[in-house]
Amino acid sequence: MTDRFVFELLGAMAYGELSAFERLSSDARFSPTLQDRAALGRMAVAEFRHFELVSDRLADLGHDAEAAMRPFQVSVDAFHDRTRPADWYESIMKAYVIDTISADFYSAVSQFLDAPTRDLVAEIQDPEESSVLQARLRGMVRDDPRLASRLALWGRRLVGEALTQAQRLSLEGGFLPEGVASFQGPLMAELTKNHSRRMSQLGLTA
Amino acid sequence: MTDRFVFELLGAMAYGELSAFERLSSDARFSPTLQDRAALGRMAVAEFRHFELVSDRLADLGHDAEAAMRPFQVSVDAFHDRTRPADWYESIMKAYVIDTISADFYSAVSQFLDAPTRDLVAEIQDPEESSVLQARLRGMVRDDPRLASRLALWGRRLVGEALTQAQRLSLEGGFLPEGVASFQGPLMAELTKNHSRRMSQLGLTA
Repeated sequence: MTDRFVFELLGAMAYGELSAFERLSSDARFSPTLQDRAALGRMAVAEFRHFELVSDRLADLGHDAEAAMRPFQVSVDAFHDRTRPADWYESIMKAYVIDTISADFYSAVSQFLDAPTRDLVAEIQDPEESSVLQARLRGMVRDDPRLASRLALWGRRLVGEALTQAQRLSLEGGFLPEGVASFQGPLMAELTKNHSRRMSQLGLTA
Repeated sequence: MTDRFVFELLGAMAYGELSAFERLSSDARFSPTLQDRAALGRMAVAEFRHFELVSDRLADLGHDAEAAMRPFQVSVDAFHDRTRPADWYESIMKAYVIDTISADFYSAVSQFLDAPTRDLVAEIQDPEESSVLQARLRGMVRDDPRLASRLALWGRRLVGEALTQAQRLSLEGGFLPEGVASFQGPLMAELTKNHSRRMSQLGLTA
């Protein structure tokens, strides 16, 4: 597959991880307990480690990480501005939705990648983090029905924004190589279906 | 030395590191370049690692980290609210001033600590981080005289707040053991003198 595709994919991932790190760690301040703050902080630190792995891979390929990230900065920032959590519960939900949709997205595009890049993409997925978030969300929703309806609404907003984002990155950004643009429709359907399944598992109507 | 003293010192350090992590990583967003954002992020991650080391030490001593941190939460948060940087330059300056004053403060109180706690305090000092910050500040001040006068003013504000904070932590918080309260005056004088020397080294009038 084209080098340019890998360059753009890694650029989007790197910037995504760097901004996830910054957003998660600033959201951490609003955690209900110090233990929750520490837990969110640990997740943020994991995102930063991912950012470093992706940057290192770009450097290994002879690319400048900054140049690779720059094209994605405006749209990723705008995404975060449009999905600013109102409190800690919404932060946790946002982290969970983005984590799982990104994991699905990156694992779907992995088939177009060279083996080392595919390994890297696999390495930075964090199923343990998703399980921790899922368990925390389940507990919240079980304990507070009013929170459940608010989070269901928030989940719908997030998935809409996340899919728009994935589409923009992959189409407008020339993200997917020419031949696989037809891959786009079924991928979006798949991402939506998986998200709905996860929301049901939380006891939320997606 | 009393166990309570160690408990309180570690609690203050732990909360200080956790909040430094959160503040630094949220400030990172305002960095002029992506490289600067990554650099600030790396520093934030180092603070989080310190937080974990201190929490682990509290756990080893049979203490609950959350209980140890809680008494310092209000005053540390208030300190950060009073010293909210207006931009990236002020963030860097704040990180430098706090890093160096805390290092001086903790190394001065180290003499009252048991050996393992003293080792921990030494381990979480980060002279490399301070040098990076110092070099960056020197460059900024050299390049822009208007920035220099703004940072000089900001430095004075920061040191005032930081010393008030150190004093509050150590006196009101019962931070220093009874016998060494007389240690307070000379310590503050020492912290001030060292800060002034560092400001002069940057080409700023303290």
